[in-house]
Amino acid sequence: MTTIVMKFGGTSVASPEKIVGVARRAIQEKQQGKRVVIVVSAMGKTTDTLLGLAGEISAEPPKREMDMLLATGEQVTISLLAMAFKKLGHDALSFTGWQAGIETESVPRNARIETIHTQRLEEALDLGLFCVVAGFQGVDKNGNITTLGRGGSDTTAVALAAALGAENCEIYTDVDGVYTSDPRYVTGARKLEQISYDEMLELANLGAGVLHPRAVEFAKNNQVPLSVRASYSDEPGTIIQEVITVEKNLIVRGVAFEKDIARITVSYTKPFNGSLANIFTSLADHLIDVDIIVQSISEEFPPSVSFSIKEDSLAEAQRVLSEAQEKIGYNAIDIETGLAKVSIVGSGMVSNPGVAAKMFDILRGENVPVKMVSTSEIKVSVVVPASEMERSANALHDAYGLTPVTVR
Amino acid sequence: MTTIVMKFGGTSVASPEKIVGVARRAIQEKQQGKRVVIVVSAMGKTTDTLLGLAGEISAEPPKREMDMLLATGEQVTISLLAMAFKKLGHDALSFTGWQAGIETESVPRNARIETIHTQRLEEALDLGLFCVVAGFQGVDKNGNITTLGRGGSDTTAVALAAALGAENCEIYTDVDGVYTSDPRYVTGARKLEQISYDEMLELANLGAGVLHPRAVEFAKNNQVPLSVRASYSDEPGTIIQEVITVEKNLIVRGVAFEKDIARITVSYTKPFNGSLANIFTSLADHLIDVDIIVQSISEEFPPSVSFSIKEDSLAEAQRVLSEAQEKIGYNAIDIETGLAKVSIVGSGMVSNPGVAAKMFDILRGENVPVKMVSTSEIKVSVVVPASEMERSANALHDAYGLTPVTVR
Repeated sequence: MTTIVMKFGGTSVASPEKIVGVARRAIQEKQQGKRVVIVVSAMGKTTDTLLGLAGEISAEPPKREMDMLLATGEQVTISLLAMAFKKLGHDALSFTGWQAGIETESVPRNARIETIHTQRLEEALDLGLFCVVAGFQGVDKNGNITTLGRGGSDTTAVALAAALGAENCEIYTDVDGVYTSDPRYVTGARKLEQISYDEMLELANLGAGVLHPRAVEFAKNNQVPLSVRASYSDEPGTIIQEVITVEKNLIVRGVAFEKDIARITVSYTKPFNGSLANIFTSLADHLIDVDIIVQSISEEFPPSVSFSIKEDSLAEAQRVLSEAQEKIGYNAIDIETGLAKVSIVGSGMVSNPGVAAKMFDILRGENVPVKMVSTSEIKVSVVVPASEMERSANALHDAYGLTPVTVR
Repeated sequence: MTTIVMKFGGTSVASPEKIVGVARRAIQEKQQGKRVVIVVSAMGKTTDTLLGLAGEISAEPPKREMDMLLATGEQVTISLLAMAFKKLGHDALSFTGWQAGIETESVPRNARIETIHTQRLEEALDLGLFCVVAGFQGVDKNGNITTLGRGGSDTTAVALAAALGAENCEIYTDVDGVYTSDPRYVTGARKLEQISYDEMLELANLGAGVLHPRAVEFAKNNQVPLSVRASYSDEPGTIIQEVITVEKNLIVRGVAFEKDIARITVSYTKPFNGSLANIFTSLADHLIDVDIIVQSISEEFPPSVSFSIKEDSLAEAQRVLSEAQEKIGYNAIDIETGLAKVSIVGSGMVSNPGVAAKMFDILRGENVPVKMVSTSEIKVSVVVPASEMERSANALHDAYGLTPVTVR
């Protein structure tokens, strides 16, 4: 008998009524002869409420105790969902992270799953029970409750699917799948039937926001077929797996973008070894995420390094760099704000060397100035003025054949 | 180094501010060179909120899942209290029931503690940490979370005190100790410095409400010295222990009473074996608590049995008896409402046979009709008209020397 893991996020379990809806949905799957594991997050705004309580006591509460506190959120959801199954005439058993055998590192608030002892879940599944598991949490070797950090419930679902040899891990969310681009900005954006792990990883990292990159990575490493589906409809959603059977032979599979990007350029009068490491170590020490990094060293110009960060980190980054000026040894800093990043993603790029060139050509045709460029094997990102973001994304989406041809 | 267990109920931890107050209180104790374990309940109305959520899903939720749900209440409190200690500059570690090694029977919602594996607590105490333990909860042999039923947090505190060989178990509450009677009704009521386990058991069962009888019983069986104290003051409260050094040589130590009592009399035309068992089995099957039972069989009168119940169970009891009339084989039922129970308690009664007689004499002197009587080794209870309850209690309180003599 095949096993599936279904994961429902906070908005899908935000009320007792919605929780009953989740149970109904899972019952449909079981009636198709499957063993069903359901992973859930905390209800709606529960986590915010708990954070508020902790904030009233301390601005910097111990991380172990934050995990103890936050883990109650999912524990409430699992008990209510198990009650909902019973109410609908089906037997279910709820499992906290430790009861489900989810063993993690001893890293509070950001633990990685090390092992899953599946015995109790297997026994319950063999008895024909729905297994309702608390996402986002586990237990370390010393019996401390841990949480998995951002996207933790996605990771729980994928890890359980891997450990149980599940046929599929279905992530239910408030969108109905992965799109070629954000439909709010790109008129021709459409849902993808399939996407590869690597493409999804790039899209996830580029802020597509449907699935946490850590969960995608875990799925890829364990070859767990994932799907992203809407909790409000029966549509099949998007399947994420290793090899995809592409509907059309498309090199580019998606166009991603994000606003509120700033560029910082640090320049020197003479080359200085070790300064590059000093810059990024200083920023990392202050938890400032740096995205694209471009270094230029030529004989004609003074050496410089440019990098992009989110605008909301800008003030902090300026402060950190200013304090470390002596250590880093730079002469001047130049800042540009009001930028955006636009990226094309597709695993077909690897064997198609002209993809980046075509991208620059399209943007030049649209008179969009390109400020920075970054490439990976399956992605090209450019930094452009924020005012040009939407137009650039639409132009690229059309030019790479992602927009469906409508017969009028 | 001596160990103490301090227990704080829901009203004492109802807000983050109050939780910080609890931490301050415990720090005072530690500064006297003690190892400190703190047992807490769920914050204020948390349990009601959780019950409400469950009620929205099912009128009869599975008990195992209710335990899973309710156990989150104390888990929130322990994490916040541990944060409060850290904020005040002290190290603490929070423990759920299972982390504290509290192993119970597999009886959801009403489990009894079987063993406490104290190793983790001992280790933490040896490191000089405050141990913050979730009351009311444990784990069964199969790893299911259980709860201990009414008064569960009191029981957790006493059981931990026994297992850790604690010097004292202090129950902090919203009254400052155990009283000779309820000060709201009896003008001369005063706080007792000491009371024996047995006396406290009778008072607890008689609705004094400060301590759950199960916790008192546990303390008695394990000879754990208990004290009941106010969370809002530094007064010493009342000490509960096996042998008490009585301030005055008092035979009666307390006067307890409760209103809203009804009497049911079931009468037969002829003796009928087994009917008594049938009556009380039928009532027990419907969870109706019967208190005093008086049976009279004489040659002059038809046989009958009278018993007292709470008035709010009366309608249900009448229905149950009426449905079972054939099985029980009675002729008539007589009901009397508007009654109250007044009791005197004191371990000195055992060796003083005239105590009950004196009680009846006092009540006759006050012209209070006695409807029913029940006695144990250390208690005499009478059922009287509710209108006479307060006057009877005051008269008994004075006559047994419980009211302090005031010099004017």
